[in-house]
Amino acid sequence: MAADLKTADIGVYGLGTMGSALALNLAEQGFRVAVSNREADWIAPFLEEAGPLAGHLSGHATLEDFVDSIAQPRSILFMIPSGAPMDAMIDAVMPLLDEGDTIIDGGNADFHDTRRRAAAFDGTGRHFVGMGVSGGEEGARHGPSMMVGGTDHSWTQLRPMLSAIAAKFQGAPCVDHLGPDGAGHFVKTVHNGIEYADMQMITEVYGLLRDAGGQTAPQIGALFESWQKGPLSSYLIEVSAAALQTVDAESGTPMVDLILDKAGQKGTGRWTLIEALKLGQSASTIEAAVGARGWSSEKALRVAAAPLLSDAVTGGTLPTEDEMKSALLAARILGHAQGFRVLSAASDEFGWQLDMARIAEIWRAGCIIRSALLDDLADAFHAGLPEGALILAPAIRDMLGDHLAGLRKTVAAGVSLGVPMPVLSASLAWYDSIRTARGSANLIQAQRDFFGAHGFERGDIAGAHHGTWNAIRRD
Amino acid sequence: MAADLKTADIGVYGLGTMGSALALNLAEQGFRVAVSNREADWIAPFLEEAGPLAGHLSGHATLEDFVDSIAQPRSILFMIPSGAPMDAMIDAVMPLLDEGDTIIDGGNADFHDTRRRAAAFDGTGRHFVGMGVSGGEEGARHGPSMMVGGTDHSWTQLRPMLSAIAAKFQGAPCVDHLGPDGAGHFVKTVHNGIEYADMQMITEVYGLLRDAGGQTAPQIGALFESWQKGPLSSYLIEVSAAALQTVDAESGTPMVDLILDKAGQKGTGRWTLIEALKLGQSASTIEAAVGARGWSSEKALRVAAAPLLSDAVTGGTLPTEDEMKSALLAARILGHAQGFRVLSAASDEFGWQLDMARIAEIWRAGCIIRSALLDDLADAFHAGLPEGALILAPAIRDMLGDHLAGLRKTVAAGVSLGVPMPVLSASLAWYDSIRTARGSANLIQAQRDFFGAHGFERGDIAGAHHGTWNAIRRD
Repeated sequence: MAADLKTADIGVYGLGTMGSALALNLAEQGFRVAVSNREADWIAPFLEEAGPLAGHLSGHATLEDFVDSIAQPRSILFMIPSGAPMDAMIDAVMPLLDEGDTIIDGGNADFHDTRRRAAAFDGTGRHFVGMGVSGGEEGARHGPSMMVGGTDHSWTQLRPMLSAIAAKFQGAPCVDHLGPDGAGHFVKTVHNGIEYADMQMITEVYGLLRDAGGQTAPQIGALFESWQKGPLSSYLIEVSAAALQTVDAESGTPMVDLILDKAGQKGTGRWTLIEALKLGQSASTIEAAVGARGWSSEKALRVAAAPLLSDAVTGGTLPTEDEMKSALLAARILGHAQGFRVLSAASDEFGWQLDMARIAEIWRAGCIIRSALLDDLADAFHAGLPEGALILAPAIRDMLGDHLAGLRKTVAAGVSLGVPMPVLSASLAWYDSIRTARGSANLIQAQRDFFGAHGFERGDIAGAHHGTWNAIRRD
Repeated sequence: MAADLKTADIGVYGLGTMGSALALNLAEQGFRVAVSNREADWIAPFLEEAGPLAGHLSGHATLEDFVDSIAQPRSILFMIPSGAPMDAMIDAVMPLLDEGDTIIDGGNADFHDTRRRAAAFDGTGRHFVGMGVSGGEEGARHGPSMMVGGTDHSWTQLRPMLSAIAAKFQGAPCVDHLGPDGAGHFVKTVHNGIEYADMQMITEVYGLLRDAGGQTAPQIGALFESWQKGPLSSYLIEVSAAALQTVDAESGTPMVDLILDKAGQKGTGRWTLIEALKLGQSASTIEAAVGARGWSSEKALRVAAAPLLSDAVTGGTLPTEDEMKSALLAARILGHAQGFRVLSAASDEFGWQLDMARIAEIWRAGCIIRSALLDDLADAFHAGLPEGALILAPAIRDMLGDHLAGLRKTVAAGVSLGVPMPVLSASLAWYDSIRTARGSANLIQAQRDFFGAHGFERGDIAGAHHGTWNAIRRD
């Protein structure tokens, strides 16, 4: 492989689904890509399958050869499991790097790890980038959305390649340098939190139509497909519509009817919530989505519980199709608003100066949550937010105004018919909490002062106060 | 103070609200109590106010004198701010301790800190106890519920004193040795999570009666007081009833109407949730309660948002008083069930072997969440849980069966009338999720396999599968 010595534009280490797709995407854009993999015997089959793109690819069985094949300053993308394997890889590759080199972790890393790793690179002359990549295999191969956290030096080096392989929205590449250290990975984490919420709310409407509406999967899929022509248009609606209309060739049964209702999850949904809690944010829509995945995995308990637990349903009517469409749009806005609030709080906490408009823009294509809504959100961010709140932006609150009644109707139907809607109902409660100028927490403060002398504020007199409370009456 | 040298049964350091009350409680039970405080000038006033109990108390201005005044093996209770102050205190007191001595952190510590501190004491011959204390000032003074984590050695030493000062339920002291290291503090943390939920659900019913029912605070208080005679009976209902019926002497206005709707919070609610998330548990009722506190504190945003955001209410009728009472009882069961699930998961994770029946028992008196329900829960735990699920215990599921329709009616009213009910609606969604044998997560799995090739299980054929999905149709 001497021909490739020190000439590759970039190295890609890790030939799993995502790494392979990104390497091929880079090759297709004309870059010379060195590849390697822990199991070296994955390399030859990968090159073979690359077909005509193989001319832009060089395989290297050892880490030393791999690093040596890349032009300096090097750009090396690692697509390997996050956590301990990444730390071990950094230890192994660090002695092989030269001044100005950048290594990129393109996995779903915990941004705290990314911050720690970036800090360890400080002052070494080497650079560590944490890059979130969204779009699944298809996106990685033909145009993902990428969220970059790292130094300006690294961004200058990576920008041409990442811009070339990124998804394009009206010609603009869906990639940007969002901030230092963990900024990119955190934005990707919150993207996934929003994705969990979007997936779950679609699923709740599917559940309502299936269990209370008696509709078949293809019928529901056709309805979802019709919603693609309008403000609800998004990749996840498209995917759901296509999946619901897929029939198993062997049995003639809709494919989704054969699938067990046990959903897996990786860490990003939970990480979003843990960070939201630490930042004092309520992201109840996303929490409900993560919780729903958790319950889905407890199939045995649910099967045991179903005949034992009363449904106590009170009866009710199904919302119209338009009301359900509105419910999804309103809840999507609210789920996104929660995600952006978490991003904003994290940006303040970690000094990232995240540009929310840019984030919305690079999510408009390539990534899993891409939707018509994100273009509206980007516009709203550009115009500036009243009170810093996305849902108060004129165009957004108008959309909410148009669609909120549908959300109410849909949640009311789920509540009265006994179809679980954790995400839709949490979204509505979140909205109603915000639009209630005088809430009921004055009673919470009274309780806390009563039993714990915590004190309270008054509406009429400044300062901290305590009540002289009636004693508890005993018979 | 030479007369007190080495004769005190226990030392109490920290004369804030809780420390003072516990010292007086111990003195009243006949124990000789050495006291000290960082600001030494708090000591004399404390002793003066102790009145006839002063004979059992000795004050010590320096840590050295304080420690020296306690009989060996020493028991020293610290009631000081958690976090860094506790670590500094450990460093200061450690050189003064002898073999067999026990120091107790009685604050609301993060149980991870308690685990770390207990580990640091291992092998030193000194002992560190993390003790959760619930009941507020009144409880601490006349009988708290206490949750002890630490060594058997420490428990043997502390048991007589703690049993004497604890609240009694039908004569049995509400204190126990729950496990090693952080077990006591974690159980207290989850107690507080359940407390947040209980407080918020009461508040939601208050909000519905006030904002949609047009009732005054004293009217609502009188209703709550009537609920004390029945299965909903609890300290928090009592407190709420008394607080709502308290009238400000000066203005003649109900006290709660003068209080700002901005509720404070400390860390325990969030800690419960962060740990729940790490353990893969959904505690959505508790999450909603913590989220509601967060929203309450954002008063300025809510005031700005109220006139801008559409309510889009669809109209609806108030539930009956009995339905609201049922809603609270059902939601209380569900909130407690979530808390106990988190305890169970943590017990497995940290090897604590927590005894859930004992925990329910020591919460029956003294602590903030004490209620008639906890006696039922203790019975259910003793009888053994079907599938390990509290809500499947026959007596508990019967209660749920009797009261669930009220929860549905109440949530439906909040949804249609636009009164936020984050906790009540999350509780219902949680319940409906569990009793749905065939959920809708099959669509989630289809989506994940469609865009990320994550695979899925099938109901009919074992193993991991992938779908051959229809392509997305483009116009």
